[in-house]
Amino acid sequence: MITDKLIDKIIQMGNPSVVGLDPQLDFVPEHILNEMYETHGHTPKACVEAILRFNVEIIDAICDIVPAVKPQIAMYEMFGTAGIDAYLKTIEYAKSKGMFVIADAKRNDIASTGAAYAKAFLGKIKIADTEHTAFGVDFLTVNPYLGQDSITPFIDECKANDKGIFILVKTSNPGSGMLQDILSDGKPIYEIVGRHVEQWGESLRGNHGFSPIGAVVGATHKEQAKRLREVMPHTFMLVPGYGAQGGTAEDLSVCFNKDGLGAIVNSSRGIIAAYKGKCDSKEHAQAARQAAILMRDDIMKHVGGA
Amino acid sequence: MITDKLIDKIIQMGNPSVVGLDPQLDFVPEHILNEMYETHGHTPKACVEAILRFNVEIIDAICDIVPAVKPQIAMYEMFGTAGIDAYLKTIEYAKSKGMFVIADAKRNDIASTGAAYAKAFLGKIKIADTEHTAFGVDFLTVNPYLGQDSITPFIDECKANDKGIFILVKTSNPGSGMLQDILSDGKPIYEIVGRHVEQWGESLRGNHGFSPIGAVVGATHKEQAKRLREVMPHTFMLVPGYGAQGGTAEDLSVCFNKDGLGAIVNSSRGIIAAYKGKCDSKEHAQAARQAAILMRDDIMKHVGGA
Repeated sequence: MITDKLIDKIIQMGNPSVVGLDPQLDFVPEHILNEMYETHGHTPKACVEAILRFNVEIIDAICDIVPAVKPQIAMYEMFGTAGIDAYLKTIEYAKSKGMFVIADAKRNDIASTGAAYAKAFLGKIKIADTEHTAFGVDFLTVNPYLGQDSITPFIDECKANDKGIFILVKTSNPGSGMLQDILSDGKPIYEIVGRHVEQWGESLRGNHGFSPIGAVVGATHKEQAKRLREVMPHTFMLVPGYGAQGGTAEDLSVCFNKDGLGAIVNSSRGIIAAYKGKCDSKEHAQAARQAAILMRDDIMKHVGGA
Repeated sequence: MITDKLIDKIIQMGNPSVVGLDPQLDFVPEHILNEMYETHGHTPKACVEAILRFNVEIIDAICDIVPAVKPQIAMYEMFGTAGIDAYLKTIEYAKSKGMFVIADAKRNDIASTGAAYAKAFLGKIKIADTEHTAFGVDFLTVNPYLGQDSITPFIDECKANDKGIFILVKTSNPGSGMLQDILSDGKPIYEIVGRHVEQWGESLRGNHGFSPIGAVVGATHKEQAKRLREVMPHTFMLVPGYGAQGGTAEDLSVCFNKDGLGAIVNSSRGIIAAYKGKCDSKEHAQAARQAAILMRDDIMKHVGGA
């Protein structure tokens, strides 16, 4: 089961973290951008070629010590078809290096439309009597606002293809409370959503006790994360907000069980833009590796278990 | 202002409806699909060429009587880069025929990522000293689960580029109540979100009294829609759920003011697949036009005003 496999790799590497590949153009080293501008002009094509080179160099530098990457599709989609091409190539390259891929797309819709997203990211597309893989990732982030019947197609694809999802429960941004912290009978919305997530994964739990129906829980909200770990004991967590957003390893340690399992922590700019203001941009990949090691050690110091 | 312009066109055409271009392959006439399969094999390319032909024929058949189309991106994205290309060409073609385009993508994210979606759909992408349009639509649907700071980048692009958004408030699916109907101090979540939407648009209202910050309100939930019209008097509504999903013109009439303004009603399969089981698939576009006329007349019968 996919979450078991991810956890096995986390244990093997001693590293419960994931690097977010959110390549804002500002993060891409100038020497790469300039080379692509010279070849392709100031075009989307130049940008995505630069992003792809940037991603490949980062993946090469971290794939032996970090179990997963989380490419954020907005940063690619903004460049239209060329951007989606770079997104697909990034996924393919990360997989070829043995990394798990979490597509951060926060997709959701109802009925046939929800099913189309689910099949595109987690399943196969049927064309006449043939089947095609569109994105082919291991995990996808999903938004719960539309309710249970909008989540079902994603769970169906998880079951059919050994894939996983992370449903937004409590997000890391300052304004997440507007809707997620509203109280109903004394319980906040994020807890109500969390209980649904726990229940949706009930029959799907693997050897490590977690289901492939995971939750996004921000490292920036420690008390809420602690409560969610209690009400979702079998829900694996994707934890954004470490580092640049202000979440500390001590804050997010509440997402882990005593055995050191239960979550994977994301950092994006803290890793991929680690070189900025610190070293020559030609050494960006080594800087990313060093930052990934520091992050790993910082988290492991605060997380129990093996 | 974009919502004023859309309303002007609705008044001019006497038709407050929008056709959803959600081209499931099952909806695409066999003669078109087979022609493309012969040329391109059973490939994503064949599918998107068929979808594009299908869309063009529908747009040609309805553009003089329907003010807007709503292409649902999931149905294109599932075909990868070729799908996005077809999505862009569909947008371009609809605009060339004078139609308003509502991108139904239900996007949302935080900080720079939310801004990337906003710029991609509603603004411009900056590349060095040049600016590029990615999707270039008039309106985008947006998911509110992440809270106010995730909505701000979309509102900023609306202001900067005279664009609009429709925020999911009460969706048309049977399971929408799981989260949207939860009560807090006696008020359902959808109403709380609706009040935020009304407030976000407060300073942006146009000549017709509505702001470009609109709301998605399902035709399948009459009482809730009625309440939302009361608490969001200046919020223009995108109303899905008519026809195939069970919402009637009488149900959705509560979304309109006495002057007949205030909403635009979507139908997807009820229009684009109207030919199914009724006439030869070569006459699909004429069948779509007839269905669009019936829908228009049905709605206008139940909606007050001019």
